[in-house]
Amino acid sequence: MAATIPEQYRDLFTKKAFAHLGTVMSDGSPQVTPVWCDLDGNYIRINTAKGRVKDRNVRRNKKVALAILDPDNPYRYLAVRGEVEEITENGADAHIDLLAKKYLGKDKYPYRQPGEVRVIYRIRPEKVSSRG
Amino acid sequence: MAATIPEQYRDLFTKKAFAHLGTVMSDGSPQVTPVWCDLDGNYIRINTAKGRVKDRNVRRNKKVALAILDPDNPYRYLAVRGEVEEITENGADAHIDLLAKKYLGKDKYPYRQPGEVRVIYRIRPEKVSSRG
Repeated sequence: MAATIPEQYRDLFTKKAFAHLGTVMSDGSPQVTPVWCDLDGNYIRINTAKGRVKDRNVRRNKKVALAILDPDNPYRYLAVRGEVEEITENGADAHIDLLAKKYLGKDKYPYRQPGEVRVIYRIRPEKVSSRG
Repeated sequence: MAATIPEQYRDLFTKKAFAHLGTVMSDGSPQVTPVWCDLDGNYIRINTAKGRVKDRNVRRNKKVALAILDPDNPYRYLAVRGEVEEITENGADAHIDLLAKKYLGKDKYPYRQPGEVRVIYRIRPEKVSSRG
């Protein structure tokens, strides 16, 4: 299964819009956290720190979901279900700086913790719905 | 398990802030959708239409998660994991009108579909985290 991010909603990923990422805990219950994101072609990219709850969840169960609201109109949004096709540390430091630029206007990600290892999830959309 | 919505984050539920509700599909993958919400004491209330994907999910698996960002500062948020303790049609029509008042400033919910049956989920928080 594969689905395409519609052309007319790609602008959401250029705005300072948070995605809300849903993952599944080991007991089968869901977890939702706000995250920065961007697009790489048709892949949605999320950047997190290795070992966090959502990271442990995604390594166990690659199925994820997310919704992203237009900050200029919350009744316009995109909801995606998909799979994390790749988890990589390659380029993840540069990517979090890129996201800091997008969301904070800063060249370097300012919240880095000592010992933190950044990772990128590349999410392949499998089901896309939209409103507005 | 029970957790309390912290006093200093209850204001999020008086703002026009969407919650992003995470549920689990029959195949064990997550689903996330933006929803209106409010508080009733320590319960989070969501109102949806019977038969939607999230409704079918919740009737199968009562574990849910949600995150709610402060519209005035997206780096301030509350994330909750919990359980739908009650699903009821009682008072659900009045409740969706109350939410329409909060979110749209309208006395009556304007998006009602013919034949739609509204339901309230009462969510008991089990794990609460916050930032900002």
